[in-house]
Amino acid sequence: MNDWFETLDGLRAHVWHHLLQGVANRDSAARHPVLATQGLDGWPEARTVVLRAADEQSGTVEAHTDLFSDKIASLRNLPRAALHVWEAEDRLQIRLSLSVEIQSGEAVAALWARVPDHSRQSYGVTPPPGTPIARALDYDKTPDPASFAVLRCTVQTIDAVHLGPVHRRALYRRDDGWTGQWLSP
Amino acid sequence: MNDWFETLDGLRAHVWHHLLQGVANRDSAARHPVLATQGLDGWPEARTVVLRAADEQSGTVEAHTDLFSDKIASLRNLPRAALHVWEAEDRLQIRLSLSVEIQSGEAVAALWARVPDHSRQSYGVTPPPGTPIARALDYDKTPDPASFAVLRCTVQTIDAVHLGPVHRRALYRRDDGWTGQWLSP
Repeated sequence: MNDWFETLDGLRAHVWHHLLQGVANRDSAARHPVLATQGLDGWPEARTVVLRAADEQSGTVEAHTDLFSDKIASLRNLPRAALHVWEAEDRLQIRLSLSVEIQSGEAVAALWARVPDHSRQSYGVTPPPGTPIARALDYDKTPDPASFAVLRCTVQTIDAVHLGPVHRRALYRRDDGWTGQWLSP
Repeated sequence: MNDWFETLDGLRAHVWHHLLQGVANRDSAARHPVLATQGLDGWPEARTVVLRAADEQSGTVEAHTDLFSDKIASLRNLPRAALHVWEAEDRLQIRLSLSVEIQSGEAVAALWARVPDHSRQSYGVTPPPGTPIARALDYDKTPDPASFAVLRCTVQTIDAVHLGPVHRRALYRRDDGWTGQWLSP
């Protein structure tokens, strides 16, 4: 019997296990991954997001954001992102490269209807996110479906590193059917 | 008496407090930030790094890496990065934009001399990091000063968000002397 990190299939299954845990469990590390994008100004950017969906079958993940946030402008310019998760207990680093489609308005109205009241607070701030303000609290939050955006992310590659007593690293690619390839760590 | 997150000076001081803690304390969240870069292939990348130095006076931070790792190639092409830290207890997200200078060889020989034996294992793997290998452990680690690289990072901006009962966000810029500006969160 192999440990999960000893086979390509086991390691990939464990990655998806954690991503699904992130969606289901607010205390999971994968609940709050870091999403990296390339900014309009030519500088890399990174910020915490909340993982809202993950599906191994289709190889997709999803996050929600304010349509007027910086990351939307960055993703409109270059619809690619990296998602990073560190699962401390399993000593597992998960790195996804993602093609990102931004959906808003009618396309996500059904989803908005299911967003709980307290979560709706995250969508709709005046002035828009990132606007200079004179005092820290010179803004107003009013939940607004017109500010609700869904990042539909198609996973292109998964880079998984297990930092055990010895290190193992594998790369999985959509374009080869997720077979997987060990890499020097 | 204000809480640390209520003034621009207090929030900035707290950011540096955490960065210094990251260098000093291996259990601190800032010990293992995420470094985001733009890959040679045009895709954003993100990975965990170990924070090795931080200095508020000069506005600099430092990480060490393998000279033959992907991130070096990315940084040679575009010497800019984002560094991300989430301090859960303080509900503080720290985002730095960094200009990165890569140093290796003679320039870092004195630093290498002070790297403990167990840490030297991180520098020097054959074949180089990211090379496809047939089996997971088909690699050899031999500490090699020629593989030791130091990322000397000049902080250009600090974006700090306190996710308290109300949210506060501030941006600090090197080019205005780190005065700080509140932003809509």
